[in-house]
Amino acid sequence: MGFRFELIKECSQTGARLGRIHTPHGVIDTPVFMPVGTQATVKAVLPRDLKEIGASIILSNTYHLYLRPGFDIVKEAGGLHEFMGWNSPILTDSGGFQVFSLGSLRKITDDGVVFKSHLDGSEHFISPEKATEIQNALGADIIMSFDECVQYPCDYSQAQIAVDRTTQWAKRCKNAHKRDDQALFGIIQGSVYKELRFKSVADLVEMDFPGYSIGGLSVGEPKDKMYEVLDYTVPLLPRDKPRYLMGVGSADALIEGVMYGVDMFDCVLPTREARHGTVMTTKGKIVLRNATYSRDYNPIDPECDCYACSNFSRAYIRHLIKADEILAAMLTSIHNLKFLIDLMKKLRKAILEDRFVEFKQNFYK
Amino acid sequence: MGFRFELIKECSQTGARLGRIHTPHGVIDTPVFMPVGTQATVKAVLPRDLKEIGASIILSNTYHLYLRPGFDIVKEAGGLHEFMGWNSPILTDSGGFQVFSLGSLRKITDDGVVFKSHLDGSEHFISPEKATEIQNALGADIIMSFDECVQYPCDYSQAQIAVDRTTQWAKRCKNAHKRDDQALFGIIQGSVYKELRFKSVADLVEMDFPGYSIGGLSVGEPKDKMYEVLDYTVPLLPRDKPRYLMGVGSADALIEGVMYGVDMFDCVLPTREARHGTVMTTKGKIVLRNATYSRDYNPIDPECDCYACSNFSRAYIRHLIKADEILAAMLTSIHNLKFLIDLMKKLRKAILEDRFVEFKQNFYK
Repeated sequence: MGFRFELIKECSQTGARLGRIHTPHGVIDTPVFMPVGTQATVKAVLPRDLKEIGASIILSNTYHLYLRPGFDIVKEAGGLHEFMGWNSPILTDSGGFQVFSLGSLRKITDDGVVFKSHLDGSEHFISPEKATEIQNALGADIIMSFDECVQYPCDYSQAQIAVDRTTQWAKRCKNAHKRDDQALFGIIQGSVYKELRFKSVADLVEMDFPGYSIGGLSVGEPKDKMYEVLDYTVPLLPRDKPRYLMGVGSADALIEGVMYGVDMFDCVLPTREARHGTVMTTKGKIVLRNATYSRDYNPIDPECDCYACSNFSRAYIRHLIKADEILAAMLTSIHNLKFLIDLMKKLRKAILEDRFVEFKQNFYK
Repeated sequence: MGFRFELIKECSQTGARLGRIHTPHGVIDTPVFMPVGTQATVKAVLPRDLKEIGASIILSNTYHLYLRPGFDIVKEAGGLHEFMGWNSPILTDSGGFQVFSLGSLRKITDDGVVFKSHLDGSEHFISPEKATEIQNALGADIIMSFDECVQYPCDYSQAQIAVDRTTQWAKRCKNAHKRDDQALFGIIQGSVYKELRFKSVADLVEMDFPGYSIGGLSVGEPKDKMYEVLDYTVPLLPRDKPRYLMGVGSADALIEGVMYGVDMFDCVLPTREARHGTVMTTKGKIVLRNATYSRDYNPIDPECDCYACSNFSRAYIRHLIKADEILAAMLTSIHNLKFLIDLMKKLRKAILEDRFVEFKQNFYK
């Protein structure tokens, strides 16, 4: 019933790999895209619909749940799975990224981070120990160590401090971690500096985590820079451990990430764009709000078999968007998530059949 | 495949009756509560979830669909059923009530109503013929004649003018009506004046509509007044035709209405209150936003078997409400609709077993 990563197959031409993660709440086929449920809900999607879409694991945020409703309430409710009615695997982010995003509202020391709540301005302190305690209380299957995530651009000396701190904090998280039914991942930092990424990997691999996250990317750098970092960082990570690229979820970045050997991805993009009326299709993105779709009676994507595409037209969904109807966000969120989850399914099939490179080439055509 | 009302059983002590309405898109067991989908969507509920809840017919609004997206688009899409992905029965309101609610934005003459759109201020004219043409284009199974609905209080002479106009307009709607797969109902007006209600009933019954709506109630009058009107109006309506009380949907008013012999009801209340975090339970209404529910791990209503009550706690739904999450409205809407639809199911069972009076007494205990 514990955590285990099974490496099933590796691509003969790239770093792409097919795997399976076993957790107390079920199995995750990798590469996988994880829908984000920041506040203990994937916005506008019922858990049973997430299941139908094919989501095998979702992500939630320590920072948000700590502030609201409070981790004591989630614990009292029987843990996060029970609280949010999701009995499949969950991953919680440590809150590091969220706290650092607060900018002037937070102050970092070696002890931890003092910050003001974005909700009511109240002051809080989160340390590696505290972040681990909260995540132990929430009870996700996979939890993150508390890291320092720097912005882009970031000068070398600052990035170096963050890497050293992230290493120290990872140790403290490991020591504080109390539940053997949760897998604690280490997070690699180092901005876009090769030596720093190498150092971060070396430090964390030394500690032997059951999985490794690649943090500090998709924070404003050009995509090429991100791919460059993945190119030299991922191969250093242990072959027998899952690798998670944090905060990345555009279709092209998922394919590239998989090529470099990443197994797990998460991003708010598909659901956020959905709520703004932008949908992903096999022919590219579509802004459904545009007048051009007012009499378009085709589904969002004729190649998609999601509930939205099986039952509703672009014209109808555009009407819902224009009329400010909640159903718009519900249908577009279902579609966008299904689109990315289906993409990952196709990628897994391509890796299994050793035609990943061919699949990638066709996708860009 | 046409429209037909089947009277199955009448209560031995009250006016309550059990029936079945046959329509081109399916059968409706009565008494029935019809969820409202004003803008071609029952707010925050997927059509398949409405089906699961047990909704057998939903209502939509001519006024809103005429303005947005436009009835030509709905027609082009293949009609309202196809457009909104709901292949069960639909009823459309004529727009009379909505137009009269515009107050200073509309002007009524015997010809029809000139009004300004609540969306963009553009000027429009709806006549009985136009309202019928639009409803023929939308293609609902049951459509309404265009009536003049007066507010409460309303003096006798004004109410009298509205009754006469409603009669004239009902004739014009009947003449304009072009589809025999749609049942056109007449609407009884007359405010709270017995003679006027009698006159309205006599006028419309003379015209032999396949069903009769009781309009002009639940417009601000005390509930006792409404029950008084039902008490003397409903018995005058033909026994073999369905009777629809417009805009009524609180649990107690449904039970009272059924007692007087009403077969159909609609109301935005259950979904509107749901979006504001108020839910209906067998023990009365609950305002989930209140702090008292922050650690309440019971379902909304332990006696309810809806998706929300089967999977989530009051504490979780309260968290969603506080966090402004769409999922809150989704879950509370499912629950409130299921609550009223289940209530109607229990009422039908009670009538079938001739224990309606007993059921009513127990409900108020």
